[in-house]
Amino acid sequence: MSTDTEASPTVLVLHGPNLNLLGEREPDVYGETTLAQLDAGLVALGRRLGVRVVHEQHNGEGALIDALHRARTFAGVLVNPAGYTHTSVALRDALAALPCPKIEVHLSNIHARESFRHTSITAGACDGVVAGLGDASYELALRHIAHLVTHQD
Amino acid sequence: MSTDTEASPTVLVLHGPNLNLLGEREPDVYGETTLAQLDAGLVALGRRLGVRVVHEQHNGEGALIDALHRARTFAGVLVNPAGYTHTSVALRDALAALPCPKIEVHLSNIHARESFRHTSITAGACDGVVAGLGDASYELALRHIAHLVTHQD
Amino acid sequence: MSTDTEASPTVLVLHGPNLNLLGEREPDVYGETTLAQLDAGLVALGRRLGVRVVHEQHNGEGALIDALHRARTFAGVLVNPAGYTHTSVALRDALAALPCPKIEVHLSNIHARESFRHTSITAGACDGVVAGLGDASYELALRHIAHLVTHQD
Amino acid sequence: MSTDTEASPTVLVLHGPNLNLLGEREPDVYGETTLAQLDAGLVALGRRLGVRVVHEQHNGEGALIDALHRARTFAGVLVNPAGYTHTSVALRDALAALPCPKIEVHLSNIHARESFRHTSITAGACDGVVAGLGDASYELALRHIAHLVTHQD
Amino acid sequence: MSTDTEASPTVLVLHGPNLNLLGEREPDVYGETTLAQLDAGLVALGRRLGVRVVHEQHNGEGALIDALHRARTFAGVLVNPAGYTHTSVALRDALAALPCPKIEVHLSNIHARESFRHTSITAGACDGVVAGLGDASYELALRHIAHLVTHQD
Amino acid sequence: MSTDTEASPTVLVLHGPNLNLLGEREPDVYGETTLAQLDAGLVALGRRLGVRVVHEQHNGEGALIDALHRARTFAGVLVNPAGYTHTSVALRDALAALPCPKIEVHLSNIHARESFRHTSITAGACDGVVAGLGDASYELALRHIAHLVTHQD
Amino acid sequence: MSTDTEASPTVLVLHGPNLNLLGEREPDVYGETTLAQLDAGLVALGRRLGVRVVHEQHNGEGALIDALHRARTFAGVLVNPAGYTHTSVALRDALAALPCPKIEVHLSNIHARESFRHTSITAGACDGVVAGLGDASYELALRHIAHLVTHQD
Amino acid sequence: MSTDTEASPTVLVLHGPNLNLLGEREPDVYGETTLAQLDAGLVALGRRLGVRVVHEQHNGEGALIDALHRARTFAGVLVNPAGYTHTSVALRDALAALPCPKIEVHLSNIHARESFRHTSITAGACDGVVAGLGDASYELALRHIAHLVTHQD
Amino acid sequence: MSTDTEASPTVLVLHGPNLNLLGEREPDVYGETTLAQLDAGLVALGRRLGVRVVHEQHNGEGALIDALHRARTFAGVLVNPAGYTHTSVALRDALAALPCPKIEVHLSNIHARESFRHTSITAGACDGVVAGLGDASYELALRHIAHLVTHQD
Amino acid sequence: MSTDTEASPTVLVLHGPNLNLLGEREPDVYGETTLAQLDAGLVALGRRLGVRVVHEQHNGEGALIDALHRARTFAGVLVNPAGYTHTSVALRDALAALPCPKIEVHLSNIHARESFRHTSITAGACDGVVAGLGDASYELALRHIAHLVTHQD
Amino acid sequence: MSTDTEASPTVLVLHGPNLNLLGEREPDVYGETTLAQLDAGLVALGRRLGVRVVHEQHNGEGALIDALHRARTFAGVLVNPAGYTHTSVALRDALAALPCPKIEVHLSNIHARESFRHTSITAGACDGVVAGLGDASYELALRHIAHLVTHQD
Amino acid sequence: MSTDTEASPTVLVLHGPNLNLLGEREPDVYGETTLAQLDAGLVALGRRLGVRVVHEQHNGEGALIDALHRARTFAGVLVNPAGYTHTSVALRDALAALPCPKIEVHLSNIHARESFRHTSITAGACDGVVAGLGDASYELALRHIAHLVTHQD
Repeated sequence: MSTDTEASPTVLVLHGPNLNLLGEREPDVYGETTLAQLDAGLVALGRRLGVRVVHEQHNGEGALIDALHRARTFAGVLVNPAGYTHTSVALRDALAALPCPKIEVHLSNIHARESFRHTSITAGACDGVVAGLGDASYELALRHIAHLVTHQD
Repeated sequence: MSTDTEASPTVLVLHGPNLNLLGEREPDVYGETTLAQLDAGLVALGRRLGVRVVHEQHNGEGALIDALHRARTFAGVLVNPAGYTHTSVALRDALAALPCPKIEVHLSNIHARESFRHTSITAGACDGVVAGLGDASYELALRHIAHLVTHQD
Repeated sequence: MSTDTEASPTVLVLHGPNLNLLGEREPDVYGETTLAQLDAGLVALGRRLGVRVVHEQHNGEGALIDALHRARTFAGVLVNPAGYTHTSVALRDALAALPCPKIEVHLSNIHARESFRHTSITAGACDGVVAGLGDASYELALRHIAHLVTHQD
Repeated sequence: MSTDTEASPTVLVLHGPNLNLLGEREPDVYGETTLAQLDAGLVALGRRLGVRVVHEQHNGEGALIDALHRARTFAGVLVNPAGYTHTSVALRDALAALPCPKIEVHLSNIHARESFRHTSITAGACDGVVAGLGDASYELALRHIAHLVTHQD
Repeated sequence: MSTDTEASPTVLVLHGPNLNLLGEREPDVYGETTLAQLDAGLVALGRRLGVRVVHEQHNGEGALIDALHRARTFAGVLVNPAGYTHTSVALRDALAALPCPKIEVHLSNIHARESFRHTSITAGACDGVVAGLGDASYELALRHIAHLVTHQD
Repeated sequence: MSTDTEASPTVLVLHGPNLNLLGEREPDVYGETTLAQLDAGLVALGRRLGVRVVHEQHNGEGALIDALHRARTFAGVLVNPAGYTHTSVALRDALAALPCPKIEVHLSNIHARESFRHTSITAGACDGVVAGLGDASYELALRHIAHLVTHQD
Repeated sequence: MSTDTEASPTVLVLHGPNLNLLGEREPDVYGETTLAQLDAGLVALGRRLGVRVVHEQHNGEGALIDALHRARTFAGVLVNPAGYTHTSVALRDALAALPCPKIEVHLSNIHARESFRHTSITAGACDGVVAGLGDASYELALRHIAHLVTHQD
Repeated sequence: MSTDTEASPTVLVLHGPNLNLLGEREPDVYGETTLAQLDAGLVALGRRLGVRVVHEQHNGEGALIDALHRARTFAGVLVNPAGYTHTSVALRDALAALPCPKIEVHLSNIHARESFRHTSITAGACDGVVAGLGDASYELALRHIAHLVTHQD
Repeated sequence: MSTDTEASPTVLVLHGPNLNLLGEREPDVYGETTLAQLDAGLVALGRRLGVRVVHEQHNGEGALIDALHRARTFAGVLVNPAGYTHTSVALRDALAALPCPKIEVHLSNIHARESFRHTSITAGACDGVVAGLGDASYELALRHIAHLVTHQD
Repeated sequence: MSTDTEASPTVLVLHGPNLNLLGEREPDVYGETTLAQLDAGLVALGRRLGVRVVHEQHNGEGALIDALHRARTFAGVLVNPAGYTHTSVALRDALAALPCPKIEVHLSNIHARESFRHTSITAGACDGVVAGLGDASYELALRHIAHLVTHQD
Repeated sequence: MSTDTEASPTVLVLHGPNLNLLGEREPDVYGETTLAQLDAGLVALGRRLGVRVVHEQHNGEGALIDALHRARTFAGVLVNPAGYTHTSVALRDALAALPCPKIEVHLSNIHARESFRHTSITAGACDGVVAGLGDASYELALRHIAHLVTHQD
Repeated sequence: MSTDTEASPTVLVLHGPNLNLLGEREPDVYGETTLAQLDAGLVALGRRLGVRVVHEQHNGEGALIDALHRARTFAGVLVNPAGYTHTSVALRDALAALPCPKIEVHLSNIHARESFRHTSITAGACDGVVAGLGDASYELALRHIAHLVTHQD
């Protein structure tokens, strides 16, 4: 887990299974940015927007749930459940337990891929979804969370 | 159809059925902003971002398709198909025929409502989806389209 | 759109697609009364019951939604969505936005016809349904609306 | 079984399972009138309309079928199959065997409740359906049957 | 319940809902023989075949189950579950509890009627099925049971 | 194809795929009688009942259809479509084209086996079904056909 | 209906179809205790726990609903709907109408049997379910109800 | 609406949503001919075959239904419902109300595209279907209608 | 297999199961022309159009596949898979292996018959479909193939 | 993993994903007891009943399976698979591999929640299920396991 | 049918519909080896492994079943049911009747093709499946059968 | 993770959940070899075939994905996803990201077990499948990978 030490409100960016391969796996679907580059960009963007971005990536459902539990006092969560999007009730329950704003994020447009990717069981426990815009899916979602956070304070 | 006369690249914001009631109908689900206020905000935001925003709202599937056909030379489209999202093959075909970037937008989180709203037949012909963030769904999508447009130029 | 000029509470009778053919199309299924005769009877019945009946017929989903939007201050609505009954989320949303009593009406018994007519997506946004009684489906529904209206006043 | 001794045409009002609890069970769904009050109202209404109303309530599928068999010479039947509406082929067969007009009646709008209440297997063997109008569902249906009866004679 | 007093092995002929209307209801589907005539024929046939035929008809699922329980020492059962054929797990359980041979019987060919009659949940707990041969469905099944009984002895 | 030369009305007994293995394959399911023994028994029974029994067995859907076409002037058909029962529209069409009485026959109780054997597409084009009674399924069906034939003459 | 005459709070133990055969039918599935023994044990256990246990068994859906209606003032209900578990909306409605705690009980583990036993329509109207523990399913449920009752008083 | 003024029998060629884009949208799927060229070819072909061809294109379901209503006295209809093919009960009802021969036409082979295009709800109300042959789908269908018309006269 | 000896490009007309009964079976569905008459008409039409028509009819799936394999050098194929249309993956594979144009043909409108005839698994491997026009289904398809052939040459 | 050091038979209480949040997450659904309190209560209850209770909670499917593997010599298992209940074949396999009694436990009544919680894939590999009774679900299950254990010894 | 005359245990390699086109049809899916080359390779491999390989290819379901019946005394069977894999109950029954080891073989990976190829009805009656490895699918399966055979002897 | 130190191309053998119990759990389904014995055999076989076999077993989906990520430079992968086979999109994505040959392996024939084991979501991202042959499933798959590897070099 990366950590920034500023006292700003914290936003968790949580990447699901296989996203550590970003920039390597199927670049025509997921783009050429690596996860480290994406995360660095989000940390920088967060800094400009007045929020501290911490980021984690896990391939296991349990580790993702653990990460969400640790975020209970955070100001917001961006989650890309990747392959768990379509079936994980456990992840949905973990998201439902979080009081802060939560946005589900997808790099690709899940509605334009195989039919088993057309529904999301986790999105029902989030506030919204941004999908299909590549890295910008994360950036726009972060921008929205930051806006909510800094206008709530 | 509203029109701005600047020579900037044009983005169509297309609102589907019942969105003319915005701010009146079920404010707990859709918010209290009226459609006129939402559109004015998007026009202003567009101006700041260097794109001309034109906006239309129609209750009929045919009128929505007509509007998309008129947008064939535009720089981008934001479409909220509302009740047609879940069944309209005709609207999907009209979107598929457009060469510019297209983003499907929903005010509410369709994944957290009745099960017949959990799938989108139109999203498969768009580039991405932003849902559940209220007015910000439109704003973020517009921001993304404007970014694409001004970086492509 | 027909209009009566009395100051009584107004009830919209809204006929969906193909009902303009009434009395001509499949008389064994839909009866021999024409739409004009049916509407005239309802206007007369409304007058006796103390409500003003206005009536419209449209073949397009959008025009039907428009008509429902215009009825927002009316005392009640009778709607026969005909072929849109079984699939139209947009029409359902328009009905849900109306605060007055709404009754879905069918001339024929949809439960005794092809299986794709056995469910109604629009009825879930109405207060009740009267089906299968021919012209009397409308008359009974009007009688009920009129009763509610004149007892509410 | 209640019986009126007049020589008028007879209409059976047949209430299905749990309707004996009317006025007690879930008044927000089913209203506050008791079954006795509802039946008394229908008998009185029938008298005004020139038909003799007899009424029965049974919790068992077999007893309901027996009651329908006894009604074979009656002038009409109002049936509220309640929980049996959605599955009972046996009740449907009993209704199909009756030559007189039959109307299925529901106090609540079954289309606006749990999805397992959205279809009716019994309605396909009736002439029509009146649902969602509370006590008035019965009254309107009775009015229609009485109209048919007195105009047939 | 009819009873013959001979000491022969006993076979129960159990008729389900609405079969008391036999010869009256939909004669084009079910034939013109009444249930009394059918039963008399089966009793006579049984006598010739060396088995005592007892027969019952019930419209209620519970009464049918009761009848099956009383048949636990019988030599065989013919059951026509009629409308309960397609849904009754309770009747299936009652049949499964009987040690004697059991044959499901249908007057009409259930495979050539409405699709909800194409499957049988009760047949899985019987030894076999005879359907579509009118009265002969019962006669052939009785003949088979009698053959089993008199060859077992 | 076996042939008897008597001038009696002819009944075709048509066995579908794998029934040539009868008596060898899964005797606990299908019994120990061989197909030759079964056919000989049916020929003898037919002779006693006044009908000429001819019998064929084919593993191919086309050969079974051919056999049915050759039976167009026969007095009746017994068909055991075996594995084709559950899917063959072509066999159903061939049966539907035959004017004589047709009975579908199964040695085992298809309702008590794997779920893909619970429905019959061919039975809808027959007059009836006898299943689960072993060899007696054929014998009872033949007895019924013979009865129809000799009573029609 | 058995009755104890003590003044303790009363708990209804309601057994559904075929449970009168307990100890006889399929002992490998349902155990060897008879219903009388089971009921006697529950009465005795109830006495120790300070509640009066009354018990009924019915094969008919209507009689089970009647029994539930009679229990409206009781302190709790244990119900084993047996074969009606999976389809009975009417029984579900009767349970929903009861204000006291209700526990659905099954002797066998319905999740480990045929797929048509894997869902329960009645459990949704109960407070909880105990399944698969044989007689102990009832005992544990009774223990829980008694605990609730005596701690509520 | 285009009109020829000859006194020949009239055939309506009705194009559904997005077909106005013909020759522009996805030429690999729909070919390079424009709608104007296609219509001109059909008018010319009609003239050779002795029928007057009128043609309309609409993107709205309601406008298509209106056009079909206007064709009630025509000699034949060719309809390409495009995206409405797969869901529109209203269009099906409008087609069913027309007494003349009706042929459903598709440029592409709908059976070889996405699975949601594999079924047609409108075709059930037409006399036949010609699909997958590009412009020739229309031409062959017109040739057939013209043949029927000129042989009927 | 019939054969013409001319040196013209060859088109196979392949008729599936039961089509040898044409003119005899269900003339209200399939018309009164016999297969021989239909084939003769197609041969003659082919001669006028400059293609040699060869025709085969088989009831077996394997024989139909064999026939398609023999057609690998032909100029085109018309195939009416009849009862195999809805399920045969093997026939679909055989069609997919043919490089020439292939049109699926149906005499009746499969969309207006039983629901199991509403989809075609074989059509996905053809270029197009002509259905519901009786003999003209074949004639139009042949005309199209001939046009392609003579314009390709 | 907590451990008691007594030599009593050991029962594993295994809590699935998100149960570490007990008492915090959705207290109206899951109650206000924390997991530590629940576990302490079960340890104490176990001590009274003569069994040693060990308890683990894991958010990961793999860790839950590991825990079950470690329990292979235990006297019993209580498992609350939480969000994995409805989909985890792997967890089901791990349970099936355990020879000791296993009871599936749920705090809430899964049958009264969202439809995707109505079925359990893991319960089929357990001996029974206790659901909907809050903490008492665990206590009753433990009581049953302890009873089995101490009566087996 | 090819035959080797050695006295070794015999293994049948049975190829289903369209496999005679191997090396010609869709080489990107099925490879470039012809069936003759494949069979020759398997015969040679069999010889090295001590088994006699006989091979047949049929396009008809019946001929494939016949071939399996002839293999009843063989030491093993390799079967590629091709297009019949997904629907043929008859072929499954024929495989189930064979006492020797049976392996289903596919050249391509059926799980990565159209969804109607994702399930196998025939595999349930085989001992195992080897798919997706091209010619090696057959070679590995033969190697396994040979191993079983020579280790059983 | 076991490791061999030779410089040969490396093949990962990846065992999914519960396979560590091999030889203990349900030996009638999975055989009596332990996982250690199986792995030792594969290492030895690999050595003979010129490939280095490394093997891992994990019960968690995340750990399995991690292992696949570590194999990105390997020459091949054998994966037995066990209980995750039927649902894991995340594992499928991890497999799809690997450039080397991948074979899915199952000890038992998944097509002959419970219906929820009949489909594989992971196999679609592999090159092939070997199932049902016990230990030999692994051995044959390894042999194939080794063949590919040593012939590619």
